[in-house]
Amino acid sequence: MSDIALIRAAAERLKGHVRRTPLLSSPFLDEIAGRRILVKPECLQHTGSFKYRGGRSAVSALDPETRAKGVIAFSSGNHAQGVALAACQMGAPAVFIMPADAPQLKIANTRALGAEVVLYDRAAGESREELGEALQAERDLTLIRPYDEPQVIAGQGTCGLEIAEQAAELGIHEAEMLVCCGGGGFTSGIALALEADAPGLKVRPVEPEGFDDVTRSLASGRIETNAGVSGNICDAILTPAPGKITFPILKRFCGPGLVVSEDDCLRAMAHAFQRLKLVAEPGGAAALAAALFHGDQLSADTVIVTISGGNVDAPMFQRALQTLGDTS
Amino acid sequence: MSDIALIRAAAERLKGHVRRTPLLSSPFLDEIAGRRILVKPECLQHTGSFKYRGGRSAVSALDPETRAKGVIAFSSGNHAQGVALAACQMGAPAVFIMPADAPQLKIANTRALGAEVVLYDRAAGESREELGEALQAERDLTLIRPYDEPQVIAGQGTCGLEIAEQAAELGIHEAEMLVCCGGGGFTSGIALALEADAPGLKVRPVEPEGFDDVTRSLASGRIETNAGVSGNICDAILTPAPGKITFPILKRFCGPGLVVSEDDCLRAMAHAFQRLKLVAEPGGAAALAAALFHGDQLSADTVIVTISGGNVDAPMFQRALQTLGDTS
Repeated sequence: MSDIALIRAAAERLKGHVRRTPLLSSPFLDEIAGRRILVKPECLQHTGSFKYRGGRSAVSALDPETRAKGVIAFSSGNHAQGVALAACQMGAPAVFIMPADAPQLKIANTRALGAEVVLYDRAAGESREELGEALQAERDLTLIRPYDEPQVIAGQGTCGLEIAEQAAELGIHEAEMLVCCGGGGFTSGIALALEADAPGLKVRPVEPEGFDDVTRSLASGRIETNAGVSGNICDAILTPAPGKITFPILKRFCGPGLVVSEDDCLRAMAHAFQRLKLVAEPGGAAALAAALFHGDQLSADTVIVTISGGNVDAPMFQRALQTLGDTS
Repeated sequence: MSDIALIRAAAERLKGHVRRTPLLSSPFLDEIAGRRILVKPECLQHTGSFKYRGGRSAVSALDPETRAKGVIAFSSGNHAQGVALAACQMGAPAVFIMPADAPQLKIANTRALGAEVVLYDRAAGESREELGEALQAERDLTLIRPYDEPQVIAGQGTCGLEIAEQAAELGIHEAEMLVCCGGGGFTSGIALALEADAPGLKVRPVEPEGFDDVTRSLASGRIETNAGVSGNICDAILTPAPGKITFPILKRFCGPGLVVSEDDCLRAMAHAFQRLKLVAEPGGAAALAAALFHGDQLSADTVIVTISGGNVDAPMFQRALQTLGDTS
């Protein structure tokens, strides 16, 4: 069961390993938004995204014997990096199943962290699930799911504990808390933590256009799925549907979702560059984009947003910088 | 007199106003450098550079009556932003003398913080000193010098207090501490703080090629000047010579200076983008550049570097990103 006790236990295990990211702000962003914006930059977390929290939480929760056998994940992205670093730090073998056509840099980075990468050929119809299950059985590896996994949600929730503390230090007890949302692990973890420690901070998920499964699911009250699984620059937060574990949490605690365009995200990346000196990836800038450009859907005087990750390549970042001509 | 007592008093005044920036790292940077690198990102400080520390320290040290009359500074850069925000927060009028051909964005940003900008025409031979002195006398304003000013040095030194604490938390008691160095306010402040709280961290200034006045002054034992005052992309740390107050401190506490090229700085900016998710300006990346590319001049197993600022425009940042083709 995902609950606050699991999050507090994760926070104990992560102490001294996870970075306590600061809470940043800029008067220039406040002016654009017409309200106070506070930014939680998880792009500054180890491996460049909040995913290290969940990875470290999950790997450290395993009993030593199980951990020594190793872990496996299906990911070429931020989840892989987070789990790879955590496994490497704790001496656990780690295997990642990635498409052969994944960016070379991501494959190289994961290997550089000491992990084993097994490639599958999407085009030739190889199934990553079959490949993964075979490996898992053969070596008795533990699968670390990216979001529908209580210890991963607990790890992401540690970010919520920090936000609750940092908001209290600033005397903030009422705010809307916008979270970049894929499968809902980060959003549900933060929601659980805030419900316990800062119930006046109301979580609302933010998603990219065309991938608003959580927003629609919250509206209808049941799990809705997206038509596609790719084709948006917000690659880090494209998921088919909210998770079986995350959705009930989201449903219980979250306000309505917000939806942002690719252009919103690029412009938010440019503002994060100019005003916060931060590198955000497109999906990582979704919540900031909502705060800056969709204020008509917000009601609180103070909005806290996550920048969930900063793993973006130079050409995409340059695309974002080009929007400054329009907005600065 | 600049001393540790002045720094501790400044830290008390800055509490709750200055950001405690984190100490970051990346295994990828360690690998390039062949040693452990820790990064103190003052680009995340209010106004995008460490200069807010000194500005707030100086403005808050004034007695209320003097402060109410206002402050004045000669700067179009990071010092102006830092003083402007501090003055605005404390209700002090602030006047900045800037060249009429300074970047419009810098002028606009300073005005947006509530400050008055008085422009002078460099080409027409107007003297900013005469203009400034006239204004200062007429309105009884207090001049805030960018580095040769004890309360400014004390403010910059608060960054050193944080570094001493953060290094101790990591169990680090011996390291080389590389500081991006212009007139020496930041470097001397950090040196004073570390001498008191972490004497095993040895400060070394880092300067751009052609503007290595501090490095040459440390070598000769007396104040040396640069031939030029402009013509290098590291605009934030181009100064004619070490200060009369800063140099004796630098001479007493610092190891030999290091000198980096413009290309070193651009490449370091690209690495900060890729591995730390930080936006550094060219001069702000000088110390990281020394750690990454001039390791033959270092001896410690651990090197701590400042990223002193992140106020860079998009075209210059794009130039930095273009170096990734060569180094990634």
